[in-house]
Amino acid sequence: MKVILIGFGIIGKGVINVIRKKREYLKNKYGMDLKVVAICDRSGAAIDDNGLDLELALKVKEETGKISKYPEKGTSMPIVEVVKSIEADAIIEATPTNIESGEPAKTYIIEGFKSGKHVITANKGPLALYFNELLSYAKKHNRIFRYEASVGGAMPIINLAKETLAGNEIIKIKGILNGTTNYILTKMEREKLDFDTVLKEAQELGIAETNPHQDISGLDTAAKIVILANSIMNMEVTIKDVNIEGITKITPEALSMANKGGYTIKLIGEVSENKLEVGPKLIPLDDPLNVKGSLNVAMLNTDLAKEVIVVGRGAGDVETSSAILSDIINIYLKNK
Amino acid sequence: MKVILIGFGIIGKGVINVIRKKREYLKNKYGMDLKVVAICDRSGAAIDDNGLDLELALKVKEETGKISKYPEKGTSMPIVEVVKSIEADAIIEATPTNIESGEPAKTYIIEGFKSGKHVITANKGPLALYFNELLSYAKKHNRIFRYEASVGGAMPIINLAKETLAGNEIIKIKGILNGTTNYILTKMEREKLDFDTVLKEAQELGIAETNPHQDISGLDTAAKIVILANSIMNMEVTIKDVNIEGITKITPEALSMANKGGYTIKLIGEVSENKLEVGPKLIPLDDPLNVKGSLNVAMLNTDLAKEVIVVGRGAGDVETSSAILSDIINIYLKNK
Repeated sequence: MKVILIGFGIIGKGVINVIRKKREYLKNKYGMDLKVVAICDRSGAAIDDNGLDLELALKVKEETGKISKYPEKGTSMPIVEVVKSIEADAIIEATPTNIESGEPAKTYIIEGFKSGKHVITANKGPLALYFNELLSYAKKHNRIFRYEASVGGAMPIINLAKETLAGNEIIKIKGILNGTTNYILTKMEREKLDFDTVLKEAQELGIAETNPHQDISGLDTAAKIVILANSIMNMEVTIKDVNIEGITKITPEALSMANKGGYTIKLIGEVSENKLEVGPKLIPLDDPLNVKGSLNVAMLNTDLAKEVIVVGRGAGDVETSSAILSDIINIYLKNK
Repeated sequence: MKVILIGFGIIGKGVINVIRKKREYLKNKYGMDLKVVAICDRSGAAIDDNGLDLELALKVKEETGKISKYPEKGTSMPIVEVVKSIEADAIIEATPTNIESGEPAKTYIIEGFKSGKHVITANKGPLALYFNELLSYAKKHNRIFRYEASVGGAMPIINLAKETLAGNEIIKIKGILNGTTNYILTKMEREKLDFDTVLKEAQELGIAETNPHQDISGLDTAAKIVILANSIMNMEVTIKDVNIEGITKITPEALSMANKGGYTIKLIGEVSENKLEVGPKLIPLDDPLNVKGSLNVAMLNTDLAKEVIVVGRGAGDVETSSAILSDIINIYLKNK
């Protein structure tokens, strides 16, 4: 199994670290010899058909910030050229999310399919904006398209709904799909602090991003809800179809009042046939959706299994790589 | 896709009802033409290579209690003969659980593999007693062996751990795997009633069985823990290796005291490298394992995704059929 990694930031490095650590495990358990034949970043790429030295790749990136400095096999070849010209079974697309245009990830994904490669992505942007278009490329070129990491990080949801619960129609999905806002609301509730104070602290701890707009405005959750709607519930919607409200107006007083009535407040994304919504909601304190800290949770309502709830870590480099690795293994097993 | 159903009790009827309702859905979504070519019960079988009339089969069973009374195609052929001689892709084994000997289910499963059929079972008995032996038959005859319904009913856990979380090593599994005991403890806690009163009420409502020994003694949970240990964590253990304590000594006073300290009491099954245990445990009130009513819950600790929690319905004919149907679809897709 040969893969090309596109994007060598936090997620990309996490993927390489996990592949490195799991090499023997994958060989013993699945008989899979997993080779990373190219790693790309903004500077160019490192390419080796026999498989790159992953420790060396991490070291070069750490020391120079540029994978193109990889000894002998480093190159300034543009990413699109790598995708088109380098032979591999699959690409792992892990570039930063852009939810305005979906680019450049969208182009990499399409070129991947066009050049006969399966595609794994962790990227919400292209999925939230162009899901059905991307899927049509996958079908046309008879390639597999997997994106478990794009929603909920390590929390299984897409493959859970489509494969583990195969045969069930998913009627509604409702949950907390953004760890940052859950962290902020949990902390505001427990320590009676106001929104700005907790946000600042979360930024200092690296839990919230420097630009937290997408998280706190509900946009990030909306993108994930759109991905779930299109991929699990066969809808054809975009982020424009979602009613979105963020959490910036939530006060510790509101949380305290909710608590007195037996409730908490969470930023909830919800999708059903007639509803596509993101906003703060009252959730009973003993409800399974009341999960704390930066955890993610989703409740799926289905016709046969009825309600199924799943909880997991929505972020983290190793955690997200868990979802990407399961996608790699699944593609390998389908093509063995 | 041709299947033989063995056992036409609550689960078996649930499976037939679900297949009947989902026929068009399965054709449209997976291109699968699912035919039930034989249904067996203690009286014999109904056999039709073109696929039985499922409505008629349900009606015959309802009216006479005997599938052998199915018009023209009813027979008194013993089940083992049906398994051996009737051509089919898979058998669905749904006979009553026997956790002393695993029979007669064990024989049906082995004869299924020997005659070249994939096997799906909902039956804890043979899995808890002879997992590795059954698996060796599956491997020898190169057939698929699936048993999602055996643990947790509609709550996905086995296929979740093995497929959705592929690549993760499962370090620990801990959870509530018996809905009856969860129902009893929840009711004792909420209504301050003693064990015997609640048990009697649960029996009258059909939530607890007439002979509730396996549930309340922890034996049912122990069988499920053994299945998880062997199938997910590659252990080779039997029910004799499990430390088992039931819930019969739990009092409303104990629950009330636990509540005052911020805890509840649940019958928890747990498996890790050094532990194989079933017993009542204190669980913090805001812990994800504190689920109410007859719900099941499991927390998986993994090396990459870290903790993943899943909640679902542990019983019910349609709910259990959901797990069986996902196994059927999975086998079909692997052999398409």
